[in-house]
Amino acid sequence: MTDALVFDAYGTLFNVHSVLARCEQFWPGKGAQLSQLWRAKQLEYTWQRSLMRRYLPFSQLTKDALEYACEFLQLPLEEKQTELLMRQYLDLETFPDVPAALRALKGHKLAILTNGSPDMIGPLVANRGMEMSFDAVLSVDALQVFKPAPQVYELAVTSLKTPRERIGFVSSNCWDALGAKCYGFTVYWINRAGAPVDRLGFQPDKIVTGLNEILP
Amino acid sequence: MTDALVFDAYGTLFNVHSVLARCEQFWPGKGAQLSQLWRAKQLEYTWQRSLMRRYLPFSQLTKDALEYACEFLQLPLEEKQTELLMRQYLDLETFPDVPAALRALKGHKLAILTNGSPDMIGPLVANRGMEMSFDAVLSVDALQVFKPAPQVYELAVTSLKTPRERIGFVSSNCWDALGAKCYGFTVYWINRAGAPVDRLGFQPDKIVTGLNEILP
Repeated sequence: MTDALVFDAYGTLFNVHSVLARCEQFWPGKGAQLSQLWRAKQLEYTWQRSLMRRYLPFSQLTKDALEYACEFLQLPLEEKQTELLMRQYLDLETFPDVPAALRALKGHKLAILTNGSPDMIGPLVANRGMEMSFDAVLSVDALQVFKPAPQVYELAVTSLKTPRERIGFVSSNCWDALGAKCYGFTVYWINRAGAPVDRLGFQPDKIVTGLNEILP
Repeated sequence: MTDALVFDAYGTLFNVHSVLARCEQFWPGKGAQLSQLWRAKQLEYTWQRSLMRRYLPFSQLTKDALEYACEFLQLPLEEKQTELLMRQYLDLETFPDVPAALRALKGHKLAILTNGSPDMIGPLVANRGMEMSFDAVLSVDALQVFKPAPQVYELAVTSLKTPRERIGFVSSNCWDALGAKCYGFTVYWINRAGAPVDRLGFQPDKIVTGLNEILP
Protein backbone atom coordinates (compact mmCIF):
# COMPACT_ATOMS: atom_id res chain seq x y z
CA MET A 1 0.00 0.00 0.00
CA THR A 2 1.16 3.50 -0.77
CA ASP A 3 1.01 6.47 1.65
CA ALA A 4 -1.76 8.25 -0.27
CA LEU A 5 -4.37 7.36 -2.89
CA VAL A 6 -5.27 9.96 -5.49
CA PHE A 7 -8.41 9.53 -7.59
CA ASP A 8 -9.40 10.92 -10.92
CA ALA A 9 -12.98 12.25 -10.76
CA TYR A 10 -14.86 12.20 -14.09
CA GLY A 11 -15.26 8.68 -15.42
CA THR A 12 -13.55 7.19 -12.36
CA LEU A 13 -15.63 8.19 -9.32
CA PHE A 14 -18.44 9.91 -11.18
CA ASN A 15 -20.24 8.58 -14.24
CA VAL A 16 -20.21 11.30 -16.91
CA HIS A 17 -22.88 9.37 -18.79
CA SER A 18 -25.35 10.10 -15.99
CA VAL A 19 -26.46 12.83 -18.39
CA LEU A 20 -27.71 10.22 -20.83
CA ALA A 21 -31.29 9.94 -19.57
CA ARG A 22 -31.79 13.69 -19.76
CA CYS A 23 -30.21 13.82 -23.21
CA GLU A 24 -32.56 11.05 -24.31
CA GLN A 25 -35.50 12.97 -22.88
CA PHE A 26 -34.53 16.12 -24.80
CA TRP A 27 -33.59 14.34 -28.04
CA PRO A 28 -35.27 10.90 -28.17
CA GLY A 29 -33.14 8.25 -29.86
CA LYS A 30 -30.02 10.44 -29.77
CA GLY A 31 -29.11 10.39 -26.08
CA ALA A 32 -26.33 7.81 -26.20
CA GLN A 33 -24.72 9.26 -29.32
CA LEU A 34 -24.81 12.78 -27.88
CA SER A 35 -23.42 11.70 -24.52
CA GLN A 36 -20.50 9.91 -26.24
CA LEU A 37 -19.65 12.78 -28.58
CA TRP A 38 -20.02 15.37 -25.81
CA ARG A 39 -17.48 13.49 -23.67
CA ALA A 40 -15.11 12.89 -26.60
CA LYS A 41 -15.09 16.59 -27.54
CA GLN A 42 -14.73 17.65 -23.91
CA LEU A 43 -11.49 15.63 -23.72
CA GLU A 44 -10.23 16.76 -27.13
CA TYR A 45 -10.67 20.37 -26.08
CA THR A 46 -8.62 19.79 -22.90
CA TRP A 47 -5.71 18.49 -24.94
CA GLN A 48 -5.97 20.98 -27.78
CA ARG A 49 -6.38 24.03 -25.55
CA SER A 50 -3.48 22.90 -23.37
CA LEU A 51 -1.21 22.65 -26.42
CA MET A 52 -2.50 25.97 -27.78
CA ARG A 53 -1.85 27.50 -24.35
CA ARG A 54 -5.44 28.75 -24.31
CA TYR A 55 -6.71 27.26 -21.09
CA LEU A 56 -10.34 27.71 -20.13
CA PRO A 57 -12.00 26.23 -17.04
CA PHE A 58 -13.45 22.76 -17.52
CA SER A 59 -16.95 24.12 -16.91
CA GLN A 60 -16.71 26.42 -19.95
CA LEU A 61 -15.08 23.77 -22.05
CA THR A 62 -17.78 21.23 -21.13
CA LYS A 63 -20.41 23.71 -22.29
CA ASP A 64 -18.46 24.34 -25.50
CA ALA A 65 -18.27 20.60 -26.13
CA LEU A 66 -22.03 20.23 -25.60
CA GLU A 67 -22.72 22.98 -28.12
CA TYR A 68 -20.40 21.42 -30.65
CA ALA A 69 -21.87 17.95 -30.19
CA CYS A 70 -25.44 19.20 -30.61
CA GLU A 71 -24.55 21.15 -33.73
CA PHE A 72 -22.72 18.12 -35.16
CA LEU A 73 -25.71 15.86 -34.56
CA GLN A 74 -28.09 18.61 -35.74
CA LEU A 75 -29.95 18.70 -32.44
CA PRO A 76 -31.51 22.05 -31.53
CA LEU A 77 -30.12 23.22 -28.18
CA GLU A 78 -31.99 25.82 -26.16
CA GLU A 79 -30.37 27.88 -23.42
CA LYS A 80 -32.60 26.23 -20.84
CA GLN A 81 -31.44 22.78 -21.96
CA THR A 82 -27.78 23.77 -21.70
CA GLU A 83 -28.47 25.05 -18.22
CA LEU A 84 -30.20 21.84 -17.11
CA LEU A 85 -27.52 19.59 -18.59
CA MET A 86 -24.72 21.64 -17.04
CA ARG A 87 -26.54 21.52 -13.72
CA GLN A 88 -26.72 17.75 -14.03
CA TYR A 89 -22.93 17.71 -14.32
CA LEU A 90 -22.92 18.98 -10.73
CA ASP A 91 -24.99 15.97 -9.72
CA LEU A 92 -23.44 13.02 -11.55
CA GLU A 93 -23.94 9.57 -10.07
CA THR A 94 -21.02 7.77 -8.50
CA PHE A 95 -20.18 4.32 -9.87
CA PRO A 96 -21.75 1.54 -7.75
CA ASP A 97 -18.38 0.43 -6.29
CA VAL A 98 -17.42 3.92 -5.05
CA PRO A 99 -19.28 4.36 -1.71
CA ALA A 100 -18.12 1.02 -0.24
CA ALA A 101 -14.53 1.59 -1.40
CA LEU A 102 -14.38 5.03 0.23
CA ARG A 103 -15.76 3.62 3.47
CA ALA A 104 -13.14 0.85 3.43
CA LEU A 105 -10.37 3.39 2.82
CA LYS A 106 -11.38 5.64 5.73
CA GLY A 107 -8.30 6.70 7.69
CA HIS A 108 -6.02 6.64 4.63
CA LYS A 109 -4.77 9.82 3.00
CA LEU A 110 -7.11 10.30 0.00
CA ALA A 111 -7.42 13.02 -2.61
CA ILE A 112 -9.12 13.85 -5.90
CA LEU A 113 -6.99 15.19 -8.76
CA THR A 114 -9.23 16.41 -11.55
CA ASN A 115 -9.48 18.38 -14.77
CA GLY A 116 -12.65 19.82 -13.28
CA SER A 117 -12.63 23.46 -12.28
CA PRO A 118 -13.61 24.32 -8.68
CA ASP A 119 -17.03 25.56 -9.83
CA MET A 120 -17.79 22.03 -11.06
CA ILE A 121 -15.96 19.62 -8.79
CA GLY A 122 -16.80 21.48 -5.57
CA PRO A 123 -20.59 21.28 -5.93
CA LEU A 124 -20.37 17.72 -7.28
CA VAL A 125 -18.41 16.42 -4.28
CA ALA A 126 -20.79 18.28 -1.96
CA ASN A 127 -23.93 17.02 -3.70
CA ARG A 128 -22.69 13.44 -3.37
CA GLY A 129 -21.92 14.03 0.33
CA MET A 130 -18.25 13.23 -0.15
CA GLU A 131 -16.54 16.28 1.36
CA MET A 132 -15.42 14.32 4.41
CA SER A 133 -13.99 11.45 2.34
CA PHE A 134 -11.03 13.36 0.94
CA ASP A 135 -8.09 15.22 2.46
CA ALA A 136 -7.83 17.39 -0.66
CA VAL A 137 -9.69 18.09 -3.88
CA LEU A 138 -7.07 19.27 -6.36
CA SER A 139 -7.97 20.93 -9.66
CA VAL A 140 -5.74 21.58 -12.68
CA ASP A 141 -7.32 25.03 -12.65
CA ALA A 142 -4.50 26.18 -10.38
CA LEU A 143 -2.04 25.44 -13.22
CA GLN A 144 -4.14 26.37 -16.28
CA VAL A 145 -3.17 23.20 -18.11
CA PHE A 146 -4.98 19.85 -18.35
CA LYS A 147 -3.95 16.22 -17.90
CA PRO A 148 -1.73 14.43 -18.84
CA ALA A 149 0.80 17.31 -18.43
CA PRO A 150 3.30 16.22 -15.72
CA GLN A 151 2.88 19.37 -13.64
CA VAL A 152 -0.72 18.31 -12.99
CA TYR A 153 0.37 15.11 -11.24
CA GLU A 154 3.03 17.07 -9.37
CA LEU A 155 0.20 19.03 -7.77
CA ALA A 156 -0.63 15.94 -5.67
CA VAL A 157 2.98 15.60 -4.51
CA THR A 158 3.25 19.18 -3.30
CA SER A 159 -0.25 19.35 -1.87
CA LEU A 160 -0.16 16.01 -0.03
CA LYS A 161 3.52 16.42 0.92
CA THR A 162 4.07 12.84 -0.21
CA PRO A 163 6.83 11.77 -2.61
CA ARG A 164 5.63 10.56 -5.99
CA GLU A 165 6.83 6.99 -5.41
CA ARG A 166 4.56 6.77 -2.34
CA ILE A 167 1.43 7.89 -4.17
CA GLY A 168 -1.09 5.50 -5.71
CA PHE A 169 -3.15 6.95 -8.55
CA VAL A 170 -6.53 5.58 -9.62
CA SER A 171 -8.17 6.38 -12.96
CA SER A 172 -10.59 4.80 -15.39
CA ASN A 173 -9.15 6.91 -18.18
CA CYS A 174 -6.25 4.87 -19.49
CA TRP A 175 -4.34 7.86 -20.92
CA ASP A 176 -4.68 9.58 -17.51
CA ALA A 177 -3.41 6.49 -15.70
CA LEU A 178 -0.44 6.31 -18.09
CA GLY A 179 0.25 10.03 -17.74
CA ALA A 180 0.42 9.47 -13.98
CA LYS A 181 2.66 6.43 -14.50
CA CYS A 182 4.95 8.48 -16.72
CA TYR A 183 5.19 11.03 -13.90
CA GLY A 184 6.12 8.33 -11.40
CA PHE A 185 3.02 7.25 -9.46
CA THR A 186 1.97 3.67 -8.76
CA VAL A 187 -1.01 3.36 -11.04
CA TYR A 188 -4.29 1.44 -10.92
CA TRP A 189 -6.28 1.50 -14.12
CA ILE A 190 -9.98 0.79 -13.54
CA ASN A 191 -10.87 -0.88 -16.82
CA ARG A 192 -14.63 -1.10 -16.40
CA ALA A 193 -15.28 -1.42 -20.13
CA GLY A 194 -12.71 -4.08 -21.00
CA ALA A 195 -10.78 -1.74 -23.31
CA PRO A 196 -7.19 -2.31 -24.53
CA VAL A 197 -4.29 -0.53 -22.84
CA ASP A 198 -3.43 2.67 -24.67
CA ARG A 199 -0.12 2.63 -26.54
CA LEU A 200 1.60 5.50 -24.76
CA GLY A 201 4.87 3.86 -23.75
CA PHE A 202 3.79 2.87 -20.22
CA GLN A 203 1.81 0.12 -18.50
CA PRO A 204 -0.46 0.47 -15.45
CA ASP A 205 0.95 -1.26 -12.35
CA LYS A 206 -2.38 -2.99 -11.93
CA ILE A 207 -5.45 -3.31 -14.11
CA VAL A 208 -8.68 -3.88 -12.20
CA THR A 209 -12.39 -3.90 -13.03
CA GLY A 210 -13.58 -2.10 -9.91
CA LEU A 211 -12.41 -0.12 -6.89
CA ASN A 212 -12.93 -3.13 -4.59
CA GLU A 213 -9.79 -4.68 -6.12
CA ILE A 214 -7.52 -1.88 -4.92
CA LEU A 215 -8.51 -1.98 -1.27
CA PRO A 216 -5.76 -2.79 1.25
CA MET B 1 -3.43 36.95 -51.18
CA THR B 2 -0.74 36.23 -48.64
CA ASP B 3 3.01 35.86 -49.43
CA ALA B 4 3.07 32.12 -48.76
CA LEU B 5 0.56 29.29 -48.48
CA VAL B 6 1.21 26.51 -45.99
CA PHE B 7 -0.76 23.25 -46.21
CA ASP B 8 -1.50 20.61 -43.67
CA ALA B 9 -0.86 17.14 -45.18
CA TYR B 10 -2.96 14.34 -43.66
CA GLY B 11 -6.66 14.89 -44.21
CA THR B 12 -6.03 18.09 -46.19
CA LEU B 13 -3.90 17.12 -49.21
CA PHE B 14 -3.89 13.37 -48.64
CA ASN B 15 -6.89 11.23 -47.75
CA VAL B 16 -6.02 9.16 -44.68
CA HIS B 17 -9.05 6.99 -45.40
CA SER B 18 -7.35 5.70 -48.55
CA VAL B 19 -6.50 2.78 -46.26
CA LEU B 20 -10.17 1.84 -46.06
CA ALA B 21 -10.28 -0.55 -49.01
CA ARG B 22 -7.34 -2.55 -47.71
CA CYS B 23 -8.81 -2.59 -44.18
CA GLU B 24 -12.06 -3.86 -45.64
CA GLN B 25 -10.17 -6.54 -47.56
CA PHE B 26 -8.40 -7.72 -44.38
CA TRP B 27 -11.46 -7.45 -42.10
CA PRO B 28 -14.67 -7.54 -44.19
CA GLY B 29 -17.42 -5.35 -42.80
CA LYS B 30 -15.07 -3.60 -40.39
CA GLY B 31 -13.02 -1.41 -42.74
CA ALA B 32 -14.80 1.89 -42.17
CA GLN B 33 -14.96 1.49 -38.39
CA LEU B 34 -11.28 0.57 -38.19
CA SER B 35 -10.21 3.43 -40.42
CA GLN B 36 -12.15 5.92 -38.26
CA LEU B 37 -10.86 4.61 -34.94
CA TRP B 38 -7.29 4.32 -36.26
CA ARG B 39 -7.34 7.98 -37.27
CA ALA B 40 -8.99 9.11 -34.01
CA LYS B 41 -6.41 7.29 -31.87
CA GLN B 42 -3.56 8.56 -34.04
CA LEU B 43 -4.63 12.13 -33.27
CA GLU B 44 -5.28 11.44 -29.57
CA TYR B 45 -1.79 10.04 -29.23
CA THR B 46 -0.27 13.18 -30.78
CA TRP B 47 -1.99 15.36 -28.17
CA GLN B 48 -1.43 13.08 -25.22
CA ARG B 49 2.23 12.38 -25.98
CA SER B 50 2.88 16.08 -26.54
CA LEU B 51 1.43 16.90 -23.12
CA MET B 52 3.29 13.99 -21.51
CA ARG B 53 6.48 15.24 -23.20
CA ARG B 54 6.98 11.76 -24.63
CA TYR B 55 7.23 12.51 -28.31
CA LEU B 56 7.53 9.66 -30.77
CA PRO B 57 7.67 10.04 -34.57
CA PHE B 58 4.27 10.02 -36.28
CA SER B 59 5.20 6.79 -38.09
CA GLN B 60 5.55 4.92 -34.78
CA LEU B 61 2.49 6.54 -33.33
CA THR B 62 0.43 5.64 -36.42
CA LYS B 63 1.48 2.02 -35.99
CA ASP B 64 0.62 2.17 -32.27
CA ALA B 65 -2.82 3.57 -33.10
CA LEU B 66 -3.43 0.80 -35.64
CA GLU B 67 -2.57 -1.84 -33.05
CA TYR B 68 -4.85 -0.24 -30.47
CA ALA B 69 -7.73 0.08 -32.92
CA CYS B 70 -7.47 -3.56 -34.02
CA GLU B 71 -7.36 -4.78 -30.43
CA PHE B 72 -10.34 -2.59 -29.51
CA LEU B 73 -12.38 -3.96 -32.41
CA GLN B 74 -11.08 -7.49 -31.73
CA LEU B 75 -9.57 -7.81 -35.17
CA PRO B 76 -6.53 -10.09 -35.42
CA LEU B 77 -3.57 -8.14 -36.79
CA GLU B 78 -0.62 -9.96 -38.32
CA GLU B 79 2.79 -8.38 -38.79
CA LYS B 80 2.43 -8.61 -42.54
CA GLN B 81 -0.87 -6.69 -42.39
CA THR B 82 0.67 -3.93 -40.28
CA GLU B 83 3.46 -3.70 -42.80
CA LEU B 84 1.11 -3.44 -45.78
CA LEU B 85 -1.13 -0.86 -44.09
CA MET B 86 1.83 1.25 -43.01
CA ARG B 87 3.20 1.03 -46.55
CA GLN B 88 -0.15 2.26 -47.84
CA TYR B 89 0.26 5.32 -45.64
CA LEU B 90 3.22 6.21 -47.89
CA ASP B 91 0.93 6.06 -50.88
CA LEU B 92 -2.27 7.83 -49.79
CA GLU B 93 -4.45 9.34 -52.50
CA THR B 94 -4.66 13.09 -52.85
CA PHE B 95 -8.13 14.63 -52.66
CA PRO B 96 -9.60 15.24 -56.15
CA ASP B 97 -9.22 19.04 -55.89
CA VAL B 98 -5.51 18.95 -55.01
CA PRO B 99 -3.69 18.50 -58.36
CA ALA B 100 -5.52 21.34 -60.13
CA ALA B 101 -5.08 23.67 -57.14
CA LEU B 102 -1.33 23.06 -56.99
CA ARG B 103 -1.05 23.70 -60.73
CA ALA B 104 -2.97 26.96 -60.38
CA LEU B 105 -0.72 28.04 -57.48
CA LYS B 106 2.52 27.41 -59.37
CA GLY B 107 4.91 30.32 -58.85
CA HIS B 108 3.63 31.06 -55.35
CA LYS B 109 5.62 30.21 -52.24
CA LEU B 110 4.09 26.92 -51.01
CA ALA B 111 4.93 24.60 -48.16
CA ILE B 112 3.64 21.60 -46.24
CA LEU B 113 3.58 21.75 -42.43
CA THR B 114 2.79 18.35 -41.02
CA ASN B 115 2.71 16.12 -37.94
CA GLY B 116 4.19 13.47 -40.23
CA SER B 117 7.76 12.43 -39.57
CA PRO B 118 10.22 12.64 -42.51
CA ASP B 119 10.12 8.85 -42.97
CA MET B 120 6.39 9.16 -43.78
CA ILE B 121 5.86 12.50 -45.45
CA GLY B 122 8.99 12.30 -47.63
CA PRO B 123 8.03 9.07 -49.43
CA LEU B 124 4.38 10.16 -49.65
CA VAL B 125 5.18 13.45 -51.38
CA ALA B 126 7.58 11.62 -53.69
CA ASN B 127 5.12 8.82 -54.51
CA ARG B 128 2.52 11.41 -55.47
CA GLY B 129 5.07 13.22 -57.66
CA MET B 130 4.72 16.42 -55.65
CA GLU B 131 8.33 17.21 -54.75
CA MET B 132 8.45 20.09 -57.21
CA SER B 133 5.20 21.63 -55.99
CA PHE B 134 6.52 22.83 -52.62
CA ASP B 135 9.33 25.11 -51.51
CA ALA B 136 9.55 23.27 -48.21
CA VAL B 137 8.14 20.22 -46.46
CA LEU B 138 8.24 20.99 -42.74
CA SER B 139 7.75 18.34 -40.07
CA VAL B 140 7.06 18.78 -36.38
CA ASP B 141 9.71 16.10 -35.92
CA ALA B 142 12.31 18.87 -35.72
CA LEU B 143 10.58 20.13 -32.55
CA GLN B 144 9.43 16.85 -30.95
CA VAL B 145 5.96 18.21 -30.26
CA PHE B 146 2.75 17.94 -32.31
CA LYS B 147 0.11 20.42 -33.49
CA PRO B 148 -1.53 22.62 -32.27
CA ALA B 149 1.49 23.75 -30.18
CA PRO B 150 2.39 27.28 -31.33
CA GLN B 151 6.06 26.49 -31.94
CA VAL B 152 4.95 24.14 -34.74
CA TYR B 153 3.36 27.00 -36.69
CA GLU B 154 6.40 29.15 -35.99
CA LEU B 155 8.44 26.62 -37.96
CA ALA B 156 6.82 27.95 -41.14
CA VAL B 157 7.72 31.53 -40.27
CA THR B 158 11.40 30.80 -39.68
CA SER B 159 11.73 28.36 -42.55
CA LEU B 160 9.93 30.46 -45.16
CA LYS B 161 11.33 33.73 -43.79
CA THR B 162 7.84 35.18 -44.01
CA PRO B 163 6.12 36.99 -41.12
CA ARG B 164 3.13 35.18 -39.65
CA GLU B 165 0.66 37.82 -40.80
CA ARG B 166 1.72 37.20 -44.42
CA ILE B 167 1.20 33.43 -44.26
CA GLY B 168 -2.00 31.67 -45.31
CA PHE B 169 -2.59 28.31 -43.70
CA VAL B 170 -4.82 25.62 -45.17
CA SER B 171 -6.17 22.67 -43.20
CA SER B 172 -9.16 20.34 -43.22
CA ASN B 173 -8.65 19.65 -39.54
CA CYS B 174 -10.57 22.39 -37.79
CA TRP B 175 -8.52 22.25 -34.58
CA ASP B 176 -5.35 22.58 -36.68
CA ALA B 177 -6.78 25.55 -38.58
CA LEU B 178 -7.72 27.19 -35.27
CA GLY B 179 -4.32 26.43 -33.75
CA ALA B 180 -2.79 28.23 -36.73
CA LYS B 181 -5.24 31.11 -36.32
CA CYS B 182 -4.33 31.36 -32.63
CA TYR B 183 -0.69 31.62 -33.70
CA GLY B 184 -1.49 34.43 -36.12
CA PHE B 185 -1.86 33.00 -39.63
CA THR B 186 -4.64 33.80 -42.07
CA VAL B 187 -6.57 30.57 -42.03
CA TYR B 188 -8.62 28.64 -44.58
CA TRP B 189 -10.57 25.73 -43.17
CA ILE B 190 -11.44 23.15 -45.83
CA ASN B 191 -14.70 21.81 -44.44
CA ARG B 192 -15.26 18.92 -46.86
CA ALA B 193 -17.59 17.10 -44.47
CA GLY B 194 -19.88 19.97 -43.46
CA ALA B 195 -18.81 19.78 -39.79
CA PRO B 196 -19.37 22.54 -37.21
CA VAL B 197 -16.54 24.92 -36.27
CA ASP B 198 -14.69 23.64 -33.20
CA ARG B 199 -15.17 25.72 -30.05
CA LEU B 200 -11.57 26.70 -29.41
CA GLY B 201 -11.91 30.45 -29.10
CA PHE B 202 -11.04 31.30 -32.72
CA GLN B 203 -12.76 31.39 -36.10
CA PRO B 204 -11.22 30.51 -39.48
CA ASP B 205 -10.81 33.54 -41.76
CA LYS B 206 -12.53 31.61 -44.50
CA ILE B 207 -14.45 28.35 -44.57
CA VAL B 208 -14.42 26.61 -47.95
CA THR B 209 -15.47 23.21 -49.27
CA GLY B 210 -12.50 22.71 -51.59
CA LEU B 211 -9.07 24.04 -52.51
CA ASN B 212 -10.45 25.66 -55.67
CA GLU B 213 -12.07 28.30 -53.46
CA ILE B 214 -8.76 29.55 -52.10
CA LEU B 215 -7.09 30.15 -55.45
CA PRO B 216 -6.00 33.73 -56.18
